[in-house]
Amino acid sequence: MTVITDTIRNGVDTEKLFATLDLIKVQPELAKFQFRATNHWIDGAHNRSTIKAFYAAGGEDTTRSEEFVIDAGEPAILLGSDTGANPAEYLLHALAACLTTSIVYVAAARNVQLTSVESVLTGDMDVRGALGVDEEPRNGFERIGVAFRVTGNAPEAKLREVVERAQSAQPSTTWSPTASRSPSR
Amino acid sequence: MTVITDTIRNGVDTEKLFATLDLIKVQPELAKFQFRATNHWIDGAHNRSTIKAFYAAGGEDTTRSEEFVIDAGEPAILLGSDTGANPAEYLLHALAACLTTSIVYVAAARNVQLTSVESVLTGDMDVRGALGVDEEPRNGFERIGVAFRVTGNAPEAKLREVVERAQSAQPSTTWSPTASRSPSR
Repeated sequence: MTVITDTIRNGVDTEKLFATLDLIKVQPELAKFQFRATNHWIDGAHNRSTIKAFYAAGGEDTTRSEEFVIDAGEPAILLGSDTGANPAEYLLHALAACLTTSIVYVAAARNVQLTSVESVLTGDMDVRGALGVDEEPRNGFERIGVAFRVTGNAPEAKLREVVERAQSAQPSTTWSPTASRSPSR
Repeated sequence: MTVITDTIRNGVDTEKLFATLDLIKVQPELAKFQFRATNHWIDGAHNRSTIKAFYAAGGEDTTRSEEFVIDAGEPAILLGSDTGANPAEYLLHALAACLTTSIVYVAAARNVQLTSVESVLTGDMDVRGALGVDEEPRNGFERIGVAFRVTGNAPEAKLREVVERAQSAQPSTTWSPTASRSPSR
């Protein structure tokens, strides 16, 4: 059990993480991935994506046993019937998940044991663009707010470093990240 | 039943759509929405968003009866255990859903009855950024490919117009949309 304790940190196999990174440094072409989503319209604001296949490390993945089926919708005020979260909400989810996983992996690589990572993302938009008739404003968020609360067994300064490293790896966008973190509890 | 046939098109209540648009033209402040996602880390690459509350048309929404719970993960090659689609795949889903709903609503507004909307989105990325250790490349897609196939009761030129209108309403990004559409079948 000592071996597991030593190599698994934050649920991430750090031995495998470092081995992967070492391999990619020698063969950077193995880092080329392609992800895919296939979507079809069902009715009104209801549509469904299926996600399974992807290309990774020089070949098609064969490890995924089943596809993910993800339904989108709109609330009544946007002419739907809540058949799923709406596209804007899925975008916030994608951002939250991306940042969270980045924080967890960076922490694992830097020997920081996390106890919690929580976030709230907000996206402001003018829905005239989304309703697809007016030319302005465009369909998209005017602003995305990001707030994280991270706790772990490291001093606050180190936790801040982990979050900042994870944030800096994100695509540059117009959003204004704010973060509050606390040291280990 | 005639009334329903006249106002519901592509599953969209066009009477309500036009009433909403007319109202927003008079009171554009009603178009200000805020969507939200709350996320918490579970273990490793596994994290979960809950989505329910949003601000719309001058107040907090009270119509949604339950929250959406959405799990994210990573495949084994990215050190996860497939607890959900990964953040990159959710982003593709969000884009696909956004474009699809835009196409459906624009078609409804322009009196086009659609029979199918299908899409395949692909996102190429170098995962060195996503793994959160190397400084370059950044964490994000190098390219997103978008292919749509739309059929409906309108000439191909009109279907193309609908798709182009829906695409032009999207945020400007680096992706290269391509579309193939066919007329009604």
